[in-house]
Amino acid sequence: MKILVLGGDGFCGWPTSLHFAANGDDVLIVDDLSRRLIAEKISAPSLTPIRSVERRISAAQEIGNVSFASCDIANDSGTFKEILTRFKPDVVVHFAEQRSAPYSMLGDAERKYTVNNNICGTNNLFSALVELNQRPHIVHLGTMGVYGYNDDFGEIPEGYLDITVRQTEKDVTIPYPANPGSIYHMTKCLDHTMMQFYAKNWGFQITDLHQGIVWGTDTDITATNEDLINRFDYDGEYGTVLNRLISQAQIGHPLTVYGTGGQARAFIHIQDTARCVYIAASNPPKTGDPVQVFNQVAEVHTVRDLAQMLHDETGVKIGYQDNPRKEAAENNLRVSNEGLCSLGFEPITLANSLTAEIKATVGKYADRLDRSVIDSKARW
Amino acid sequence: MKILVLGGDGFCGWPTSLHFAANGDDVLIVDDLSRRLIAEKISAPSLTPIRSVERRISAAQEIGNVSFASCDIANDSGTFKEILTRFKPDVVVHFAEQRSAPYSMLGDAERKYTVNNNICGTNNLFSALVELNQRPHIVHLGTMGVYGYNDDFGEIPEGYLDITVRQTEKDVTIPYPANPGSIYHMTKCLDHTMMQFYAKNWGFQITDLHQGIVWGTDTDITATNEDLINRFDYDGEYGTVLNRLISQAQIGHPLTVYGTGGQARAFIHIQDTARCVYIAASNPPKTGDPVQVFNQVAEVHTVRDLAQMLHDETGVKIGYQDNPRKEAAENNLRVSNEGLCSLGFEPITLANSLTAEIKATVGKYADRLDRSVIDSKARW
Repeated sequence: MKILVLGGDGFCGWPTSLHFAANGDDVLIVDDLSRRLIAEKISAPSLTPIRSVERRISAAQEIGNVSFASCDIANDSGTFKEILTRFKPDVVVHFAEQRSAPYSMLGDAERKYTVNNNICGTNNLFSALVELNQRPHIVHLGTMGVYGYNDDFGEIPEGYLDITVRQTEKDVTIPYPANPGSIYHMTKCLDHTMMQFYAKNWGFQITDLHQGIVWGTDTDITATNEDLINRFDYDGEYGTVLNRLISQAQIGHPLTVYGTGGQARAFIHIQDTARCVYIAASNPPKTGDPVQVFNQVAEVHTVRDLAQMLHDETGVKIGYQDNPRKEAAENNLRVSNEGLCSLGFEPITLANSLTAEIKATVGKYADRLDRSVIDSKARW
Repeated sequence: MKILVLGGDGFCGWPTSLHFAANGDDVLIVDDLSRRLIAEKISAPSLTPIRSVERRISAAQEIGNVSFASCDIANDSGTFKEILTRFKPDVVVHFAEQRSAPYSMLGDAERKYTVNNNICGTNNLFSALVELNQRPHIVHLGTMGVYGYNDDFGEIPEGYLDITVRQTEKDVTIPYPANPGSIYHMTKCLDHTMMQFYAKNWGFQITDLHQGIVWGTDTDITATNEDLINRFDYDGEYGTVLNRLISQAQIGHPLTVYGTGGQARAFIHIQDTARCVYIAASNPPKTGDPVQVFNQVAEVHTVRDLAQMLHDETGVKIGYQDNPRKEAAENNLRVSNEGLCSLGFEPITLANSLTAEIKATVGKYADRLDRSVIDSKARW
């Protein structure tokens, strides 16, 4: 299959691209390298010494068929349409979005950038495909954060909620009510409504993967060659919570837990991100169906429990901080991940991989860690 | 009160701005004049000879305190922030969106323009207000089209639906599930989700007016001076259905009914648009409340019934056409408009105003009508 990976140079996009290539697919990465530029701008480069995209691609070509095109799909749909016309993808995996909630909440410029990039990018993708009359299966990276954390709804189903309309007493199924907690999460809610319309009106086959918080660095493929190494962010804006805590544990920095740490969240290892996207790409919904949603998650933990687990393992103390975010101090969370599991997904769990992760990556590059970027600058 | 009217040069924006001014408010219109530019681009100018914005403003100053600033809020938030800093509005009425469903469905350029303009514009508005720490009441023009036309939900409530979650058996109220029928309608759904987040996170007081299809031309104020005349669109893209039928009836052109004409839609006269926005502006929700929604509608008719009414009055025959849109051939529609009615709204109905409308406006300018723009070019 011909796989177009938008945002294929990023934290999730890179290992996913390699996973497709290693499985024999023809992979074209399209990326504007904005993640690298923002990392420079906020002075928080990857802990791991990721290589230039050219060197990455050159190393990737030993794994399989991988090429690269530079394009900002949100602002240059002319170039993007040329790429589509030439490549004619069977599947488009869409990671090309600003993916940090704290970054999206820093200020006016970051709010605007996140909305313009994510919403116009997604619309440009579909609009170009309508114009070119191409109908690849679109696999979009969503987030568990679109659901909010409301106990009234029970276990979080995969994208749709069964309800009874009280005034008509009719039983219907509706898209799960959006309840985002940041501008970033909001854009993923808007993406979903947009994709429902493109599916309904133009018959697109679309899968939206509502992913948990990703942790880890490398996959079995990126680990084979230093030139393929994946990025690892530990700063307050782009570091995902578990990766931040892991890196803090390694250097003996108090583990930054916001509020009580009672926030229950869903997690998934980066290796599983690649595997799940691969599974999803091979299992499109039927033409005419609404957007297919899978919850791409392995397990649920509270932030407090994660910190405790790391404390028990390393002895590093927990440093509770005032929560810089507006969110419930404590919540319950039960999530269905039946869709991907029924298609063969066998999750990697923290219990059997956490120590290895700390030693393999963070230990190796701990001298590159800059303590001044650990605290989040975003407040909301 | 200081009222900032974004898009105040447009079909609804102009009479609404004058209505506020006539009632003693201090009105600043911000507009990029894109509606005039698009009308030129698609060779479909207003049937009525609207004046330049300068001449309009000069005439408006006899009515009250009205001024004008040129700004594209979707692409020039620097200028927009200067305007906000200077004016410090108590209320922002937000009409600054591309408002034609058929135009939004013409092609790639129009889809992109509609999404970029509407979504980035709305986000820029709120993001700028967050930065400047201003919290005016925002009155946003939505559309009845966000609801879709699904009988399972019963009478369309004002923005929120009472449901029972089947797996928990809990009774909750949720934002009405979005079900847009065009890219334009989709942007209004996205706006709503965006505004719910801005209300929740930054305490904005927001009213979303889900408006029916507007008909008519002038209000009691615009009719007082030719320099204040409102625009009247009758072309296939920007003409609203009843105004298109009215203009066709006047010149003896077969009344263009799509499909069976069984589409039931909600209608409101342009005079009532101005009155309702005025009422809404004076009745903000409480800080901390979710977005307040009013259905801004007067009455419901099927397109077939409207055509029949005009046929009975003028003898002009009905010209049924294949429906260029994806929509149900026939639907039921019941809509609550309790919110605005409880605040004093007394709707103008077709029954008592239709003939006057035809004679007053369309009759007077019928020689300006270009038959070649009557048919819609959009297909979806």
